[in-house]
Amino acid sequence: MSTRKEPDEVEYLSGLFEGKTTGAPIAFLIRNKDAKTSDYENIKNVFRPSHADFTYQEKYGIRDYAGGGRGSARTLLPCVVAGAIAKQILTSQGIEIQSNVIQMGEEREKDTVGAVVQGIIKNAPVGLGEPAFMKFHAVLAHAMMSINAAKGFEIGEGFSAARMRGSECNDEFINDCGRIRTKTNHSGGVQGGITNGEDIVFNVAFKPIPSIMLPQQTVDIHGNPTTLEIQGRHDICVAPRVLPIVEAMAAMVTLDFILLKKCNKI
Amino acid sequence: MSTRKEPDEVEYLSGLFEGKTTGAPIAFLIRNKDAKTSDYENIKNVFRPSHADFTYQEKYGIRDYAGGGRGSARTLLPCVVAGAIAKQILTSQGIEIQSNVIQMGEEREKDTVGAVVQGIIKNAPVGLGEPAFMKFHAVLAHAMMSINAAKGFEIGEGFSAARMRGSECNDEFINDCGRIRTKTNHSGGVQGGITNGEDIVFNVAFKPIPSIMLPQQTVDIHGNPTTLEIQGRHDICVAPRVLPIVEAMAAMVTLDFILLKKCNKI
Amino acid sequence: MSTRKEPDEVEYLSGLFEGKTTGAPIAFLIRNKDAKTSDYENIKNVFRPSHADFTYQEKYGIRDYAGGGRGSARTLLPCVVAGAIAKQILTSQGIEIQSNVIQMGEEREKDTVGAVVQGIIKNAPVGLGEPAFMKFHAVLAHAMMSINAAKGFEIGEGFSAARMRGSECNDEFINDCGRIRTKTNHSGGVQGGITNGEDIVFNVAFKPIPSIMLPQQTVDIHGNPTTLEIQGRHDICVAPRVLPIVEAMAAMVTLDFILLKKCNKI
Amino acid sequence: MSTRKEPDEVEYLSGLFEGKTTGAPIAFLIRNKDAKTSDYENIKNVFRPSHADFTYQEKYGIRDYAGGGRGSARTLLPCVVAGAIAKQILTSQGIEIQSNVIQMGEEREKDTVGAVVQGIIKNAPVGLGEPAFMKFHAVLAHAMMSINAAKGFEIGEGFSAARMRGSECNDEFINDCGRIRTKTNHSGGVQGGITNGEDIVFNVAFKPIPSIMLPQQTVDIHGNPTTLEIQGRHDICVAPRVLPIVEAMAAMVTLDFILLKKCNKI
Repeated sequence: MSTRKEPDEVEYLSGLFEGKTTGAPIAFLIRNKDAKTSDYENIKNVFRPSHADFTYQEKYGIRDYAGGGRGSARTLLPCVVAGAIAKQILTSQGIEIQSNVIQMGEEREKDTVGAVVQGIIKNAPVGLGEPAFMKFHAVLAHAMMSINAAKGFEIGEGFSAARMRGSECNDEFINDCGRIRTKTNHSGGVQGGITNGEDIVFNVAFKPIPSIMLPQQTVDIHGNPTTLEIQGRHDICVAPRVLPIVEAMAAMVTLDFILLKKCNKI
Repeated sequence: MSTRKEPDEVEYLSGLFEGKTTGAPIAFLIRNKDAKTSDYENIKNVFRPSHADFTYQEKYGIRDYAGGGRGSARTLLPCVVAGAIAKQILTSQGIEIQSNVIQMGEEREKDTVGAVVQGIIKNAPVGLGEPAFMKFHAVLAHAMMSINAAKGFEIGEGFSAARMRGSECNDEFINDCGRIRTKTNHSGGVQGGITNGEDIVFNVAFKPIPSIMLPQQTVDIHGNPTTLEIQGRHDICVAPRVLPIVEAMAAMVTLDFILLKKCNKI
Repeated sequence: MSTRKEPDEVEYLSGLFEGKTTGAPIAFLIRNKDAKTSDYENIKNVFRPSHADFTYQEKYGIRDYAGGGRGSARTLLPCVVAGAIAKQILTSQGIEIQSNVIQMGEEREKDTVGAVVQGIIKNAPVGLGEPAFMKFHAVLAHAMMSINAAKGFEIGEGFSAARMRGSECNDEFINDCGRIRTKTNHSGGVQGGITNGEDIVFNVAFKPIPSIMLPQQTVDIHGNPTTLEIQGRHDICVAPRVLPIVEAMAAMVTLDFILLKKCNKI
Repeated sequence: MSTRKEPDEVEYLSGLFEGKTTGAPIAFLIRNKDAKTSDYENIKNVFRPSHADFTYQEKYGIRDYAGGGRGSARTLLPCVVAGAIAKQILTSQGIEIQSNVIQMGEEREKDTVGAVVQGIIKNAPVGLGEPAFMKFHAVLAHAMMSINAAKGFEIGEGFSAARMRGSECNDEFINDCGRIRTKTNHSGGVQGGITNGEDIVFNVAFKPIPSIMLPQQTVDIHGNPTTLEIQGRHDICVAPRVLPIVEAMAAMVTLDFILLKKCNKI
C-alpha cells in the first residue's frame, strides 16, 4: 500500500556481548536514509491540517519540518525493534501476540482512510496489572494511544459494553477441568485492572492519515490563508503498516508487567 | 439512582496552614463509615462474575472482601477531592471542565446498564502534552481507563474516525480574527499529542455494574460451581455518579500538563 | 537526652486485613499530639540560623512555623514505621541492620553537638544495586542525606580512601571454603555500585542541632537584625535519636533493591 | 597523567535543527575507538580486586570484560557532554560551576592514589530542592556517588560539622544591603534541603584507581587463587580527569532543580 522504499538497518550499540544480552540497556541506531528535505520544502511554512505542525510550532517555537520530525510515525520504528526483543522473551514463555485489521475504509482517489486494529495477547499469566493507576488495560491504552493517528481504544466489549445489561456483559466463572476460567470473555481478559488468564482482546481506532493528495485550505505560519497540495510519497491508511507497532507496544506492556509481577510477593 | 447513604467527611491532615496551601503535599482522610462487613459475608468465598475478586485472590493470595477492598469504586473518592482542588486552580485560569452522560441503557428489573460519558475541557492552553509517550490524549486515556468499569476511551471522532476519509476528518486551519484555529474539531483538541487550543472532547465507555440482583452461575474459591445472589445496596449504572470522577481525573491530567509546560522553555 | 514527651500512636488505615498485608499500600497515621503553637510564637517572624525557615519562606512564600512544619525532623517518624515493616521482611531473610554512634561531641552548656553514626547491613545478598545511576551506595547516600541535619556520607573507607594507595585500599579476593569473598572490606560491601556479599558499612555525619539555647544574632522576616533566644524543649544532639531513622532508611533501600533484583533475570 | 590516547568524537543524532535545540531529546553517539579487546584477554577469567568484575558476574551471570563494559568510567563520557549543554544554559543565567582537587596522594611506583575533589556552584537561585526526599544535597550526593570510584560526599562542613558545636556551626543571618544572607557558610549553601543563595560547596572523596601495576592476589572465575598482573594503560589517580565529570553532574542536578522550581507556584 505504501510506495515508499525505506530499507532500515539496525545497528546495535550496547547491551549485547558475544551474542547474548548482558543486562545493560540495549541501545541501537536506525538511520533515516530515506528523508529528502526537498520533499518538505513546500510544507516548511504551512500548517498541514490535522498534522502536528501547528502544535509543535506553538509549543516549542521551532519545528523540524523535514520528515515530520518527532511527530512523524517513523519515530515508532525503534518501538518495533524493542518490541521484537520483548516478543522473543514472551514467546519463550508461551505468550503470543497477534493483530488484525478488523475494519478499514475503501481506497479512494487521492484520499486516505481510517481503520480499526484488533490486538490479542494469548496465554498471558493471571495477575498482570497493578491497582489503582497501573491497571493493565489503562497502561495498554496509554501505549496504544501513543501510536500516531490512534484516536480510540477499547478492551473486551469496549463501547459495546455501554449498550449491554449486566446480565449480558458479566463473565460467569466456570471450573474448566480444575482451572477456574470465565465462560465468556466480555471483559477482554482483564478484571479490576488485572489479567485473568483469558485472551486479552483490545481494539485501536486509527483516523485517516492526514496527508491527502487533494487540495486543502489552511494557513501559513503567519496566519495567511493558503491552499496546500501535498506532494511526496504517502500511505493511504496506517493499516496494515501499523500492525507490527501495535504488537510491539502490546509486547512491551506485557513484559513490563511480567517483570513487575515478580516483585508482587517476597 | 443509588440507595446507599454515604456521607463522606474529609479531614485534611497536611499541606494547609491558616487557610492556604503551603506547598507541602495535601494529605486528607475520608473514613469509610458505611461499610458493613456483614453485607459481604455471602461473597466472602465466592468469585463474583466480572468483579476483581478472582484476579485479586490469584494475584495477592489474599483478598479484602469487605466493601470490595481496593478494587471498590469507593477508592476513587480521594481522586474527586484532589480533582476538586485541581479544578479550583484551573478555574482561576479560565479553564473549565464539563461532563455529560451521552448514552445510557434503560433501567431494568434487577439488572444493571452501561453508559457513555463525554468530557469536555474548555480553554486549555495550546501546547499541553509531551511527545512521544506523554501525549495529552494518551495520558488522559490512562487516567480514564483507571476508573472502575471503564472499557473504552476515544478522543475527538474516536472510533468514528476509523470510518472517515482524510478529506472529511482533517481539521482545516483558519485565521479567526488573528488567532489560528481549526474550522472543525474532529481532532478533539489534540494534534500530535499536543493540545491545539480547541475544546478537548473525549468519551469514556462504562460497562454495566457487575453487581446485578439476578441469580448468577459462578464458582467458589475452591472452584465448586455455585449460584450467587447478591444482596446489599448497589447502583444500577455508574452514571451519573461517575461524572465527578471523570471531571476530577481530567482536571488532574490538565493541571499536571500545565505544570510540565512550565519546564518547556528555560 | 531529650526532655520532650512524645508518645506516638500509629493508626493503620489500609493494607492490612485480618492481620496480614494484602498487597495494597499500607497507609498509617501518626497524629502530632505534642505540638504547642504557643512555643513557636516567638520564632514566627524570625529566621532561625541554620534552620529551614528562610529557605521555606523564600521558596513557598508561606511558612508553617508551628513545630517546624515539613522541615521538622518529626516528619521522619513515618519512615521509622515503614522501616520497621521493611526490617521484619529483611529479618525473615536473615538480613540484619545495625547502627552505632561512633563519634559525638561532649554535652555543653546551652549548646548542641554533632555526631557520626555508623550503619551496618549484614548478610545482604550479592547483586543489589543497578548501574549506572541506581548504584547501591548512591541510593543509600541519597536516603541518608535526606535525614535532617545529615551533612556527609561515606561508604567503606570513604574519605580515608582518598589518603590511601591502591595497594592498600584494594580488597583481594579469596576462596573462603568455596565461597568467593574479599580478604578485607575497604569497599564497604559495594563494588561497582553492586553489593558483593560483605557487610555494607557506611557512616553519616550529622551537624549539631541548630536550635541552641544561647542568644544568636539573626534577622526577622523583614530583614531587621534581631537577637533570637530559643525557648521550648530541644535535644542536644541528633544521636542517639537518629539511630532508628538511619536503620529504617537502610532497611527501605535494601528491600527496594531486593525487589528490583527479582526483575534482573527473566 | 594518563598515557591513553582517546580522541572522542561526538555525533549528534537528534534534538538539533539548523543549529538550535528543538525540544526533542538530544541524542548523541561517542564511539569507543580505543578499546583493544586483546588488552583485556588476561583479565577475562580473573576477578580484579576492587573492580566490578565479581559483582557484575554474580548479578548478571555474564560479563563484558572488554574495556570494563558498563562498569568502566568511560561510560561517564556522555554525562560530560550532557553536562556541557546544561552548563551553557546555566552560564546564560549567571550560574557558574567550578571544581578543584583539594587533596591528592603523591605519585608512587606502580601504585595508584586517591583524591578529594571540591565542587562549587555559584549564583544558584534561592529555592532549589524539594522536601522531603528530593533535597538538593541528597540528590547531589546521589549524583556524585554515581561517579566511578567515589566513596564519600559532604556538603558544607560535612564530617567536620560532626565535631562542631551548634554555636560554631550555625550560620547567622545578616542583612547585606537589603538582601538576607548568611554571615558564614558552614551549611554549604543548602538549608533544610533547599538552596539559600550562598555558594553551594561540596566535596567528593575518590578511592585510588583499583588497577595497580603491582602483582595482586585474587581468584579466577572458578574460585582458584591466582596472581594478577595488570597490563595495559591506566591512570594513577581519577583526579584531575574526574573534574569535568563532577562539574557535569553538578550542572545537571542544578538545571533539573531549576526546571522543577518553575512548577513551584502556579
